[in-house]
Amino acid sequence: MSTEPIRVLVWDENAPHVPVSVYPRGIRNAIADGLIELGGDGVQVRTAGLDDPDQGLSDIALAKMEVLIWWGHVRHHEVRDECAARVAEHVCHRGLGFIALHSAHYAKPFKRILNCTGHLKGGWREDEQPEEIRVCAPRHPIAHGVRDFALAQEEMYGAPFDVPPPTVVVLQSCFPAGGEYFPSGLAWTVGGGIDATFASGPGQGVGQGEGAGRVFYFRPGHESVPTYFNPEVRRILLNAVRWAARWM
Amino acid sequence: MSTEPIRVLVWDENAPHVPVSVYPRGIRNAIADGLIELGGDGVQVRTAGLDDPDQGLSDIALAKMEVLIWWGHVRHHEVRDECAARVAEHVCHRGLGFIALHSAHYAKPFKRILNCTGHLKGGWREDEQPEEIRVCAPRHPIAHGVRDFALAQEEMYGAPFDVPPPTVVVLQSCFPAGGEYFPSGLAWTVGGGIDATFASGPGQGVGQGEGAGRVFYFRPGHESVPTYFNPEVRRILLNAVRWAARWM
Amino acid sequence: MSTEPIRVLVWDENAPHVPVSVYPRGIRNAIADGLIELGGDGVQVRTAGLDDPDQGLSDIALAKMEVLIWWGHVRHHEVRDECAARVAEHVCHRGLGFIALHSAHYAKPFKRILNCTGHLKGGWREDEQPEEIRVCAPRHPIAHGVRDFALAQEEMYGAPFDVPPPTVVVLQSCFPAGGEYFPSGLAWTVGGGIDATFASGPGQGVGQGEGAGRVFYFRPGHESVPTYFNPEVRRILLNAVRWAARWM
Amino acid sequence: MSTEPIRVLVWDENAPHVPVSVYPRGIRNAIADGLIELGGDGVQVRTAGLDDPDQGLSDIALAKMEVLIWWGHVRHHEVRDECAARVAEHVCHRGLGFIALHSAHYAKPFKRILNCTGHLKGGWREDEQPEEIRVCAPRHPIAHGVRDFALAQEEMYGAPFDVPPPTVVVLQSCFPAGGEYFPSGLAWTVGGGIDATFASGPGQGVGQGEGAGRVFYFRPGHESVPTYFNPEVRRILLNAVRWAARWM
Repeated sequence: MSTEPIRVLVWDENAPHVPVSVYPRGIRNAIADGLIELGGDGVQVRTAGLDDPDQGLSDIALAKMEVLIWWGHVRHHEVRDECAARVAEHVCHRGLGFIALHSAHYAKPFKRILNCTGHLKGGWREDEQPEEIRVCAPRHPIAHGVRDFALAQEEMYGAPFDVPPPTVVVLQSCFPAGGEYFPSGLAWTVGGGIDATFASGPGQGVGQGEGAGRVFYFRPGHESVPTYFNPEVRRILLNAVRWAARWM
Repeated sequence: MSTEPIRVLVWDENAPHVPVSVYPRGIRNAIADGLIELGGDGVQVRTAGLDDPDQGLSDIALAKMEVLIWWGHVRHHEVRDECAARVAEHVCHRGLGFIALHSAHYAKPFKRILNCTGHLKGGWREDEQPEEIRVCAPRHPIAHGVRDFALAQEEMYGAPFDVPPPTVVVLQSCFPAGGEYFPSGLAWTVGGGIDATFASGPGQGVGQGEGAGRVFYFRPGHESVPTYFNPEVRRILLNAVRWAARWM
Repeated sequence: MSTEPIRVLVWDENAPHVPVSVYPRGIRNAIADGLIELGGDGVQVRTAGLDDPDQGLSDIALAKMEVLIWWGHVRHHEVRDECAARVAEHVCHRGLGFIALHSAHYAKPFKRILNCTGHLKGGWREDEQPEEIRVCAPRHPIAHGVRDFALAQEEMYGAPFDVPPPTVVVLQSCFPAGGEYFPSGLAWTVGGGIDATFASGPGQGVGQGEGAGRVFYFRPGHESVPTYFNPEVRRILLNAVRWAARWM
Repeated sequence: MSTEPIRVLVWDENAPHVPVSVYPRGIRNAIADGLIELGGDGVQVRTAGLDDPDQGLSDIALAKMEVLIWWGHVRHHEVRDECAARVAEHVCHRGLGFIALHSAHYAKPFKRILNCTGHLKGGWREDEQPEEIRVCAPRHPIAHGVRDFALAQEEMYGAPFDVPPPTVVVLQSCFPAGGEYFPSGLAWTVGGGIDATFASGPGQGVGQGEGAGRVFYFRPGHESVPTYFNPEVRRILLNAVRWAARWM
């Protein structure tokens, strides 16, 4: 095991509508603070945003990183196509880990990497309501030290979620107010030169070749509620960083 | 709530390779016995098989049923296309519940109803090994009274599982011998005249119109091991029958 | 055959970058003029745009129409989700015809109606170059009176085009400068309460029920070149309107 | 250009129902004879069948070949999964050309290589009827020397055809008896270590890396009619062999 810290870039779209009362230093800093709080010297965290030069996503900046965390919501369309393509290239061919948060199911790099629409076919409901999160894969590295928990107030998303079938469902949410379910922690491995159309027999998985990238989607994180200060959420994100960097 | 019993047809392909030492009366009777044992007067169970007249799937026989349970493995190709089409018609347009077991991920009606390949993209491993089954949706009707459990010996299936995104993952398996995961209890609602390409906002779900059918896939059930005598498995199948018949 | 004219709404995003030297009255008026020039009393044409009240897509406005023609490019993200949902509802459940032009492969209603990403997986090339258009279905109503032709200057799109399989390829383009192909005239029928997952035997097609909508995609129409003044293009669009309105 | 002949394997399932009056030496020999008749010293043709040792598909046999032609209809299920996997491996990772004929839309290697169901969503009609075949890509190598033509008697297939979007539609059929269309000549390039989920800009196509295989589907070829003796069909198959072997 390397003694070098994992290099993580936390990116957000610098959304104007995030309430300062909830996230005084913005969403990306709340996430970065959580990684440092729990991860200590094991992580080296940088932040970037849509309004930075090169939208914070230059080839040089990305090449230094092992994991990219992405939060976006109302400014997806401002992300330039070449930036989305660059992120996808690093994930699919260099093995950059990619963690997509909440509304990033509609982010350009997410849709491009997974080649999907990202639609929430069961709808959504913005008014705040309880979300119960079930650990569906207790042995998985991303669930390490995480028990079932609830967020008192979150936005509802309803399945089916129009993404490719994952390699594992780490977490699933239930919204008891309306009875909806949604897969809130999904993992895929993509690219790496093993063709997705061919897989058979044990050990001949999909996207396992050299250069393949690990992708994790985590559902919670509406901007109106302090989800990224929640200790369970912070634990999940640090675990996801370690998994996406192939440390576990 | 009706006082009439739920009418269930348990169908199997009458596979010649099912060991008599494991299933003395065949697989379909083991499943039927389990439903009657737990469900009592609440279910009216018939059995049928591939070698019956009309392959056990005549229009008259199907029209009487509320739920069809399907087990097949090595004789999928002998199911006539018109029989598969007839089953799909009853599911998608009359609301017949459909429960597909184990190798039925490659059954003609399953692939037709869900319009998918049913591939196991992470492979499979026939040698018997432990399967840990996690309840991912404890509040769901199919999980009623079911706790996490393990089967000492089962065949391994590896995700990704090439099916459309479900409305809920009720169960997920982990095979600790090789570290694979597979969604072992998946639910969909299909057909019913609400177009699958259009869904937005809460309440505008997919496949919720009149005539829509409920579909459940349950992974365990290799013919070499006595899975369908397991009490947890029997509980899950009775729950699935009730859910698929819209009783819960 | 009705003696009433076909009611058509020509919508564009009112794009600021369309050169006045090429389209003095904007793109939507060029298209509308072409329909009137050839269609005479047989069509009743209105125009609307993204900057109109309700984005030109109120329920009342749509309900009056038989066909909607859509051109958008750089302002897709400004179309409100509820407007896209409304258009999809009219197409999939009331049978409104929908004709998507050029960059509308990324328009919200197009992606929603067909449930696809709309990606151009073979890339694109904005510099102007010849496009050769082959009539692939000479007997089809949309090809009525149309022969193979070429546009001297157009943008290149490269296949594969990430859309569902069509019912017919009416036109296909070849870009000899780079050797790319792209399906430039595609037809689908969607919705109408016949489930897309179930179709077998002649006459049991997809999306043929009452309320199903006809959808046509036509590739040419980059804003920097006068494509919508071309007589063959105008003939194709009028034919497409008649077909989408179920007059032929 | 090499002076070595192209090595082609023509495989069929040795179907018992092929009428001797139509194909006295079976289908694979009719196809092989056509390649030799037109291709002369430029091709070295072998034949194999389902009843041969290793089902005619041993690793050694496949490794010698540049192109595999496949005809199957009623015995798809007898092809062993490991044989289908082996073919897919040679196509996706060694660049073996693969030409699938007629009912091979449901052949195991075809569905595996393209990861699709291969469904004919517009149905089919076995009674013999005219098929008009339109050349949709006159400049394409597979269309070299081929003009629009008709087969007096063939089985009907109806679109949509549930396969991934092709790179080019070389041929499309119209069945005037019922007004159906079907894409009768489709080309794809698969595998080769360029991830199918990532493609942007010209030159960054899908499946273009080293080891990528070329795949062609050709629709005509019902066993009850002498389609593989037709001179246009023979020309198309020889062209397809040359293209799939990367000679043109």
